[in-house]
Amino acid sequence: MKKAVVLLSGGMDSAVTLFYAKKKGYKTYCLIFDYAQRHKKEISFAKKIAGISHSEYFVLKIKLPWKGSSLLDKKIPIPKDRILDSGKIDIPPTYVPARNTIFISFALSFAEAIGAKVIFIGANEIDFSGYPDCRPRYFKKYNELLREATKTKGIRIEAPLLNKTKKEIVCLGRKLDVPLGLTWSCYKGGKSPCNRCDACRLRTKGFQK
Amino acid sequence: MKKAVVLLSGGMDSAVTLFYAKKKGYKTYCLIFDYAQRHKKEISFAKKIAGISHSEYFVLKIKLPWKGSSLLDKKIPIPKDRILDSGKIDIPPTYVPARNTIFISFALSFAEAIGAKVIFIGANEIDFSGYPDCRPRYFKKYNELLREATKTKGIRIEAPLLNKTKKEIVCLGRKLDVPLGLTWSCYKGGKSPCNRCDACRLRTKGFQK
Repeated sequence: MKKAVVLLSGGMDSAVTLFYAKKKGYKTYCLIFDYAQRHKKEISFAKKIAGISHSEYFVLKIKLPWKGSSLLDKKIPIPKDRILDSGKIDIPPTYVPARNTIFISFALSFAEAIGAKVIFIGANEIDFSGYPDCRPRYFKKYNELLREATKTKGIRIEAPLLNKTKKEIVCLGRKLDVPLGLTWSCYKGGKSPCNRCDACRLRTKGFQK
Repeated sequence: MKKAVVLLSGGMDSAVTLFYAKKKGYKTYCLIFDYAQRHKKEISFAKKIAGISHSEYFVLKIKLPWKGSSLLDKKIPIPKDRILDSGKIDIPPTYVPARNTIFISFALSFAEAIGAKVIFIGANEIDFSGYPDCRPRYFKKYNELLREATKTKGIRIEAPLLNKTKKEIVCLGRKLDVPLGLTWSCYKGGKSPCNRCDACRLRTKGFQK
C-alpha cells in the first residue's frame, strides 16, 4: 500500500485532507506539531482525528527560541473581526515565521525515512489569513526544491484544498465522513471558540454557506 | 549593523563560514542543532567557536522520531576509508534525511524573527560525502523558495565554501584566524578522531594538502 505523510493540526482543513488521502488509497502517517502554540489544545484534537482515521502518528515537539508571532507570544494580541473577503488581505500577527517551511521539511525527512512519496498539507488560499506559505506559488517552489533535496527521488507535496472555498471544504468533509465536530480551529485555544479570530470566522463562514 | 544567521555545527567548514560572515561585516547569530547526532560532542565545540567569535547563539533541540541514518542510529555502521576523490560519490548511510532542509527552515524562521537578511551555511560540494543537500542546484532552488516563503522579503542563503576544496577552506580559515584546532569533524564522536570516516578523511586531506 502506498504511503503518505499528512501534516495534521487538529483543525478542519488538515482533517479533511487526511480523509481525502485515505480515500485516494494511501496508508497515512500523520505528523502533529507541538510548537508551544497558544492553541496547543488543537493537539489533542489532532490525535483523536489520527486515531479515528487509523493512521500512525508522531507528535513532534519544537521549541523556537525566538517569537515574532501572536501564536507564540501572548503579549501580541490576536486580531479580532478582520475583514477576510477582500482580494488583498494583510498578513496578521498570527503569522509564524517560516512555519510551513519548517513543518514540510520535517514531513520530507519523515517521508524519506519511511518510503512515502507524498506529503499532504491542508493549506488553502481562498478563505485564508493571507499567509505567504499558503499560496500556490510557494508550494510550486517547494516542490521544485524537493526534487533536489533528498536521496530518494519523487517525493512531492500535495495541497488538495488549495483552491477550495471553506464552503467546499465543509462539503468535502461531509462527503468523506470526516468527524468535523472533533476538529478545533480557534487560535485562542480557550474553553470554547472565541468566534472572532480569523480561524473561527473562516470556519463559521464555511458552515453557514 | 546588518545581521546574519550562521548555521554552526562545530566542524571546520561552518566555523570558517562564521568568521567569513564576520569579516564581511555581519553581526552574527549562530544556530546550533542538537538532533541526537552520534557525534553530539560537536555541540560543545560549536558553542566555544560561537563564544570566541562574539556571536549570540541558540542550541535548538530536535528529536526526530524516525531514524534512517548512521548518524542517528548506532546499529547502522559509519563507512570507513571510502574513496572520496572520484567525480561520482555514492551517498553514504551517514546521510540524514532532509537535514539541511530542516536546518535552513529554522534559520529562515530565526532570520525573519530578528530581521536578518542572510543565512550562512558552510556546505561544500568539492570535498564532500555526496549529500544531495550540499549541491549548488539545491541552494539555488532553496533561494527561489525563500522568495515566496516569508512575510519579509529579501532573505537569502549564502554558501561561500560551496566551490572550494578542503585545502582552500583550511587556507581561508588560517587567513581569517579561525581557531581550527577548536573544531570537531569526526562522525564517531569518540575521545579522539577515528581518522577513517568521511569527515575525518576530508579534514585530514585539507590539512595535508
